[in-house]
Amino acid sequence: MKIFLAQVKPRIGDIEYNFDLIKNCYLKACNDNADICLFPEMISVGYTPEDLLHKPSFLMELEKHTASLIKNSKASTILLPTVIKEKDKLYNAILAIQNGKVIGKSYKQCIPNYGVFDEERYFSSGEPRVIDINEYKIGVPICEDMWFPEVASKLKEKGAEILLVPNASPYDGEKFNTRLEIIRKRYQEVRLPIIYCNQVLGQDGIVFEGRSFGYDGSLKFCLSAFREDSIVVDVQGNKILTTNNIENFSKEDELYGAMVLGLRDYMHNNRFKSVLLGLSGGIDSALVAAIAVDALGKENVHAIMMPSKFTGRESMEDAERVAEMLEISYRVIAITDIVETIDSGIGGTSGIAYENLQSRARGIILMSISNMTQSLVLTTGNKSENAVGYATLYGDMCGGFNPIKDLYKTAVFNIAKFRNSKLPTSIQVMNLNFPVMPERVITKPPSAELREDQKDSDSLPEYSILDQILEAYIEQDLGKEEIIDKGFDKETVEKVIKLIKISEYKRRQSAPGVKLTTRTLDKERRYPITNLYKG
Amino acid sequence: MKIFLAQVKPRIGDIEYNFDLIKNCYLKACNDNADICLFPEMISVGYTPEDLLHKPSFLMELEKHTASLIKNSKASTILLPTVIKEKDKLYNAILAIQNGKVIGKSYKQCIPNYGVFDEERYFSSGEPRVIDINEYKIGVPICEDMWFPEVASKLKEKGAEILLVPNASPYDGEKFNTRLEIIRKRYQEVRLPIIYCNQVLGQDGIVFEGRSFGYDGSLKFCLSAFREDSIVVDVQGNKILTTNNIENFSKEDELYGAMVLGLRDYMHNNRFKSVLLGLSGGIDSALVAAIAVDALGKENVHAIMMPSKFTGRESMEDAERVAEMLEISYRVIAITDIVETIDSGIGGTSGIAYENLQSRARGIILMSISNMTQSLVLTTGNKSENAVGYATLYGDMCGGFNPIKDLYKTAVFNIAKFRNSKLPTSIQVMNLNFPVMPERVITKPPSAELREDQKDSDSLPEYSILDQILEAYIEQDLGKEEIIDKGFDKETVEKVIKLIKISEYKRRQSAPGVKLTTRTLDKERRYPITNLYKG
Repeated sequence: MKIFLAQVKPRIGDIEYNFDLIKNCYLKACNDNADICLFPEMISVGYTPEDLLHKPSFLMELEKHTASLIKNSKASTILLPTVIKEKDKLYNAILAIQNGKVIGKSYKQCIPNYGVFDEERYFSSGEPRVIDINEYKIGVPICEDMWFPEVASKLKEKGAEILLVPNASPYDGEKFNTRLEIIRKRYQEVRLPIIYCNQVLGQDGIVFEGRSFGYDGSLKFCLSAFREDSIVVDVQGNKILTTNNIENFSKEDELYGAMVLGLRDYMHNNRFKSVLLGLSGGIDSALVAAIAVDALGKENVHAIMMPSKFTGRESMEDAERVAEMLEISYRVIAITDIVETIDSGIGGTSGIAYENLQSRARGIILMSISNMTQSLVLTTGNKSENAVGYATLYGDMCGGFNPIKDLYKTAVFNIAKFRNSKLPTSIQVMNLNFPVMPERVITKPPSAELREDQKDSDSLPEYSILDQILEAYIEQDLGKEEIIDKGFDKETVEKVIKLIKISEYKRRQSAPGVKLTTRTLDKERRYPITNLYKG
Repeated sequence: MKIFLAQVKPRIGDIEYNFDLIKNCYLKACNDNADICLFPEMISVGYTPEDLLHKPSFLMELEKHTASLIKNSKASTILLPTVIKEKDKLYNAILAIQNGKVIGKSYKQCIPNYGVFDEERYFSSGEPRVIDINEYKIGVPICEDMWFPEVASKLKEKGAEILLVPNASPYDGEKFNTRLEIIRKRYQEVRLPIIYCNQVLGQDGIVFEGRSFGYDGSLKFCLSAFREDSIVVDVQGNKILTTNNIENFSKEDELYGAMVLGLRDYMHNNRFKSVLLGLSGGIDSALVAAIAVDALGKENVHAIMMPSKFTGRESMEDAERVAEMLEISYRVIAITDIVETIDSGIGGTSGIAYENLQSRARGIILMSISNMTQSLVLTTGNKSENAVGYATLYGDMCGGFNPIKDLYKTAVFNIAKFRNSKLPTSIQVMNLNFPVMPERVITKPPSAELREDQKDSDSLPEYSILDQILEAYIEQDLGKEEIIDKGFDKETVEKVIKLIKISEYKRRQSAPGVKLTTRTLDKERRYPITNLYKG
C-alpha cells in the first residue's frame, strides 16, 4: 500500500484556500499512484478556528466545499480530517473519500480540554472506526486518541492493520521526544505500523512543527521541521519500507526554529511585511532582532535606539553594533525632550512613575513610526520579566508580537550564545550569518537603564535563581512551601510569588508570543487577575 | 424545615476568608435554629479560581480548612459547595456536614464548557445523590444541573422532597428572567419546592448578582440584587411558607447596578481606592465617571480633561460641567506641547498616525498620574468601538478596568438618559443625585475630536445601524450573507465584519470590563487573531 503523506500548512478559517491545498496534494497523490492521501487534523479549516466553529454560515461553507471535493474524487482515497455536524453535535472526524463517495467515517474519541486546548467547547466524543480501503483495514485515531491506550487497542480489536494518525500537535521544547515515546508505547501495545501526520503552522504564537513520521518498531522516516513537506510511504504487511535521513537538532536550534516560524507565519497571515523594534543595547532586543532578520530578511527589520540621560555609552555602541552586524536599518531618536515635556506637563514625576514615563515615551515613538510605515512593532520582554511584571505596560510592552515571550532569561542567554556561534539548521536560509551581536551584549549585567546605575538585580533575584523559582511555581505547579523546602530563600520565594500574582493584569494586556515551554503564561495558564490566594 | 440561605460574597482563592464567612453564617443559622445552612456554588474557593485548582498546595489548604469545619460542626447541617478530589479526579460537589461528620455527598453532573465557562478543564461529571437530613430527603443539583431536565427528575425518582440549588450564575441583561423560566420548567417536571442560592460578586468583570429565590409553583421570595443578603426559609411539605417583597428593576437600572458592582469589587479586591479618567466632554467618559462616583464615592474619582487644538469649546464646557455636577476633582492638562515634541522628534506624522499620537499622549499622561497617585485608570470605550477597533491601542485603551466595555453605544445613550433622570434602585446609596451630565452630552453627535470637524459617522455607520449589525454578527452568530438578507447595505455589512476581524489583536490587549450581554468580546467569544475566514 502507498500513502501520500501531506505535511501541509493550512490557513485558519480560509476554507477555500485549504481545499485548494487539499486538491493539489490529492493530484500529486494520484500521480504517484498512492492508495491514500493523508492530511493533518482538521485540515479543512486549519487547527484551530476556535469560535468560528459556532457560526452556522462557516459550517455551511465547509459543507459546500466538502461536497465538491467528494464529487471530484477518484480511485485514490482521500482521508479528510474535518469537522462534521450530526444531530446537532459537532465532531472532529475523518471522511474517507473515493470515486465520488464517502466510503467511511471515523470520529475523534479523546477530546482534549487542558493546556492550550478547548476542544470540549466544540466537539462531542465519537466512535473511532476501522475504514476499509482497497482491502486494507485502516485505523485513523486523531491526535489525542494516541495519548492513551484505549483507542489504538480498540481499533486493533476491530481488525485495523495500520494506524494513520492526523495531528495538530503544538510545539514545545520537549514535544518531539514526548511524542515518539507515546507512539512507542502504543506500538508495543498493538504492534501495528503507525504513520503520524502533523500540521506545520505558526498560529497566534502556537507553533505546529511538522516532523511527521513513520514508526513500525523503529523510526523509519521523519519529515522536515518547521516547513511543509511530503513523502510517499510504502507499507507492506506490518512494515514501513520507506526511510529517509532523520534530522536532529540541538535544543537551542529547535527553539530558534520555532520562534522564526511563529513570527514569520504571524506576519505573513496578518499581511505585515516588516517589523520595527527598539534596540537598547541589551540581549533581549538583540536576540529578537536576529530572529526577525532570520524570519523576514534584513531589509524588513528596522531598529530604533531611543537613548535617555541614563543610557550608557556601552549601550549606544552595542545597539549600533548589533544593527551593523545584522545589516538592518538603524535610527537614533532621543527621548529626553519628550520625557521632560510630559514630566513638566503633569507637574513632575519621580520614582517608578518617572521610570515608566521613559519606557512609555519609547513606546509612543515606536507606535507612531509603526503607524507611519505599516511596520509591526515587536516587543522583546522575556518570560522571566513577563512572569514577575518587570516591564512597563504601554511602554516596552507595546507591540504586536513577541518572539521570546516564553523564553526564560537564562534561556535567552543560551539561545543568544547559540545563534552567535552557529547557523541554525532548523530554519530556511535567508543570507544568514554569525555572530549577530557583540560578545559584550551577552556578558554584561542586564539593566533597564531607567535610573542611574540601575541593574535588574537591584529589583529581582539573580536570573539563575529567579528562573528556578518561576519554573517550580509555573511549570511544576509547586506551592510556596514546597519551593522553600527545595532550599530557596523564604523571603525571595514569597516576593517572587507575590510579583507573579499582582502582575496578572499586565500579562492580560500583553502581545501574543511563541509557545516554547510546556506552560506559557497565556491561555495555557488561566489565572484570575483578582487572585486572593495567599499560598 | 428551616433553611438558612446565605447569599454571600466569597473572595477568589482566599480559602481562609471564605471559611470564616462560612462559619459566621453557620453560627447565625444555628442561632436561628435552622436545619440546613445553604451556600452558593464552590463557596469554599469562590467561583472561579480557574487554574489555581491545578495547584496541589491549593487543594491541600482547602482540605485542611474543610476538616476543621467538619470537626466544629453541630446539629444544624452545613451544605458545603466545594471542590473535592477523589481517585485523581476533581469534582464540583456538595458535602453535607453535621455533628462532626460528613453525612452525605452529592456531585455536579452537568459540567458547563461554553460561553465564559471552562469547567471541563477541571471537573469530572459526578452522580447527584439524595441526602438525608433530619428525616428530610434533600436533592442538591448544582447550577448547570438545573438547566436540563435530567438531574432534577433523577433526584425526584430517588425520593428528593425538595431541591436546594447552589449557584454561581453570571449576570447578563436577560439572565434573571431566563433563570426563572428554567426553574418554572423544572418545577413543572418534578413539582418540588426549589430554593436557589446565588453568589454575589464582581470577579474580573463577571458579575454574579445574587437574587437568590424560592419557587414552589410561584415565586415566594427573592433576595437583594448586587449585594449580600440572607433569609431563613420555612418549608412545610412541598410549600415554601416564607415570602418577601420582590424588587423589580428596569433593564437600565439592572445594567447600572451590575456595572457598579463589577467596578467596586474589582477595585476593592485589587486594593485600589480611587480612579482616574480622561473626561472628553463626550457621553462615554461622562457615564463612566457617574458609575465610578456611584461605585466609589465622589472623593475617589479624579477627572482629567486633556484638550488638543481640535477640542471644541463645547467639549471643554461639557467636561467641566460633568465634573461639577458629579462634584469630582477636575484638572486640565493640554496635550499640544507633548504631541508637537513627539511629532517633531520622529520627523513628523500625519493621518491616522497623528490621530493616534494625540490619543497616546493622553494615555501616557493618565498613566503617569496613576503611577504617582496609585489611582487606577478607567478606560471608557464602549462595545461598538471595541468591536470595530475604533480606539487607539496604548491611547484611549490605556487603563485597568472598563465598566462600559460590554455596552453598545445605543445602550450607552439609554443608560445615560436613565441615570440623568433617576436614582438607580439597584445600588447602595452613596450621596447619589441626578442629573449627572448636561443634556447636550447626550444629544450632540459623537466625535473623537482627533482632527478638524471629525464625527464618528465619518468612519462608521450611524450607531443605530452599526449596533444592529454587530448584534447580528456577534450575539446571534449570523454570517455576512444572512445579515445582508435582513436588509442591511452590503457594503456596510462587509466593512463592519472586516473591521471586527482585523481588530481582534486590539481587543486582546484591552482592559477587562463588566459582562452585560449574552456574549462579551472577551473569553465568551474566542476568535483567532489570525482569522482568514472570508465570510
